[in-house]
Amino acid sequence: MQRTEIEDLGEFGLIRRLTEGTVLRQPSTLMGIGDDAAVINPEGKRVVVSTDMLCEGVHFDLAYVPLKHLGYKSIAVNLSDICAMNAIPSQVTVSIAVSSRFSVEALEELYAGVHKACAVYGVDLVGGDTSSSTSGLMVTVTALGLVDGEAAVARSGAKAGDLLVVSGDLGGAYMGLQVLERERVVFKSAPMAQPDLSGHEGILERQLKPEARTDVVREMADLKLKPTSMIDVSDGLASEVFHLCAASGLGVKVFEEKLPIDPHTYETAREFNLDPTLCVLSGGEDYELLFTVAQDDYEKVRNHPKLSVIGHMVDDPEIKTLITKNGLETPLKAQGWDGIAQSNSEETV
Amino acid sequence: MQRTEIEDLGEFGLIRRLTEGTVLRQPSTLMGIGDDAAVINPEGKRVVVSTDMLCEGVHFDLAYVPLKHLGYKSIAVNLSDICAMNAIPSQVTVSIAVSSRFSVEALEELYAGVHKACAVYGVDLVGGDTSSSTSGLMVTVTALGLVDGEAAVARSGAKAGDLLVVSGDLGGAYMGLQVLERERVVFKSAPMAQPDLSGHEGILERQLKPEARTDVVREMADLKLKPTSMIDVSDGLASEVFHLCAASGLGVKVFEEKLPIDPHTYETAREFNLDPTLCVLSGGEDYELLFTVAQDDYEKVRNHPKLSVIGHMVDDPEIKTLITKNGLETPLKAQGWDGIAQSNSEETV
Repeated sequence: MQRTEIEDLGEFGLIRRLTEGTVLRQPSTLMGIGDDAAVINPEGKRVVVSTDMLCEGVHFDLAYVPLKHLGYKSIAVNLSDICAMNAIPSQVTVSIAVSSRFSVEALEELYAGVHKACAVYGVDLVGGDTSSSTSGLMVTVTALGLVDGEAAVARSGAKAGDLLVVSGDLGGAYMGLQVLERERVVFKSAPMAQPDLSGHEGILERQLKPEARTDVVREMADLKLKPTSMIDVSDGLASEVFHLCAASGLGVKVFEEKLPIDPHTYETAREFNLDPTLCVLSGGEDYELLFTVAQDDYEKVRNHPKLSVIGHMVDDPEIKTLITKNGLETPLKAQGWDGIAQSNSEETV
Repeated sequence: MQRTEIEDLGEFGLIRRLTEGTVLRQPSTLMGIGDDAAVINPEGKRVVVSTDMLCEGVHFDLAYVPLKHLGYKSIAVNLSDICAMNAIPSQVTVSIAVSSRFSVEALEELYAGVHKACAVYGVDLVGGDTSSSTSGLMVTVTALGLVDGEAAVARSGAKAGDLLVVSGDLGGAYMGLQVLERERVVFKSAPMAQPDLSGHEGILERQLKPEARTDVVREMADLKLKPTSMIDVSDGLASEVFHLCAASGLGVKVFEEKLPIDPHTYETAREFNLDPTLCVLSGGEDYELLFTVAQDDYEKVRNHPKLSVIGHMVDDPEIKTLITKNGLETPLKAQGWDGIAQSNSEETV
């Protein structure tokens, strides 16, 4: 495999190489890469802006994440924030800082993932920056989106009685990570062993190649369904529910039996001796949309194949309750990933 | 001096601490920090977007840059890119990755500079991200600006015969860096020596606290002066002139005697045994605006106190000429900082 050093190309050469063949698909993009700034024509719409950073050793480990997937994921997770405002993503800027450990070919892999995600979501890569770093790889993406006049949805608009709804299913990305970590441990103790990932493609894809739910945003617009509040599920369902409650000054009741979990995620959690509900509540990185709708909109969501009504908002902000499958009321908790592992080790001791 | 560890606050706590008291000044900012994304109402204008990264050990050295200045500079240099499109900056997002070497108090210093710059330029801090890094400090800023319908100016619109104009004066930031580096060398060999920076405040400020020329953009709008092409001077005048030439498919003639240089910058260059013209052409980090205007606009620029006409564009893209003070025609060269130091050492050998 060829290895071209970054310094052989220089900064301008590297940018050209990584961005050549960039296609502009958005009518709103008047100017993209190649000037001091990009120019966007929102055509009367409002502009939504979000930024996220992914740092090696903190947000990803290149031992299990292929660079192309990392590029794809860095775009998708940012677009998910745009979706969480009820907006349609339109442009991204991508900035990378890299140490000389990385070859030009490695960065091309990363950008192959960036370009792929741009094509899938129809967004334009319109700018960015490249820099050397003293160690590791860091990717910062800023995503822009467009939304009609009053259609933007904040976290703070929920009302008591509103239904709590989530798209897709949850816990898969977390279980995908568990599978990757198990194989890594096996690999360390027996480097010749073949990784046993077969049968887990679905949850591995949830972890390595998450998707932003632009489809859900579009379908809600078609249904003339405007959520009263919305957030995306990046840190775990419980934690995101708490954000909606805090921003809206409300409490919540969540029903365990309504939580959407894919059968394979469920089985894998069992295989790992983890509580599937805990994986759903605290797993994170699902990038599904969590939102509230007025009760009047129940008919629009009740049988929607991509949506699950999982609870409702209540007046008292002190009440954050999970109603378990056997009818018990327990406090809803946001544990984070460490919490899951710990609860598991306690259970299995 | 108190030292609070970042981990004691956690990510959300840190963001709250760094962004509390953030003031929104722009009518175009509908939602700022605190949701999944910011929401901006461009009110019929076009949106200009630019991103820049500043990495420790690459773009700055904390041995001579106070953190507050770094915060200020990280905003100003991004706003300069917005100005280079003939737009007025309106919002920024700031993302930082930091190692545990930095205390919360140190980051507050950095953000004091960010907030200061936002206040000076009337732009709103509307988002960002914070992350830990395995080493060093990295700051990524995305700046947004607004511009009326057809007013955006690219690098590519110059015509043969257009006048080449630059704002302010050049070379000061480079000479400021030379002074800082000299004192650093002195400090290394005699740590008790007091740094001798007195009398150099002007050029030190050009280096440590550069300003974006929003004032020039506004004054050009008042004069109904629309440049035909524009760029900001970040890498050095010659290099930026080449960018305008390349994007517009033209050549250029630049007159040495017209290059704006502050008397103090001139004297300091002489003191350092450097050619002042070379400092102007290749120094960089001046963040002045370099642009072309039609000859018909000569009256608007000729006596403007902030503008200097330094040359004109020519048809033949092969011609990039510097006409020296004694009337000689020599090829204009972009040497970069290393080039200056080298040319100096050659001269003085």
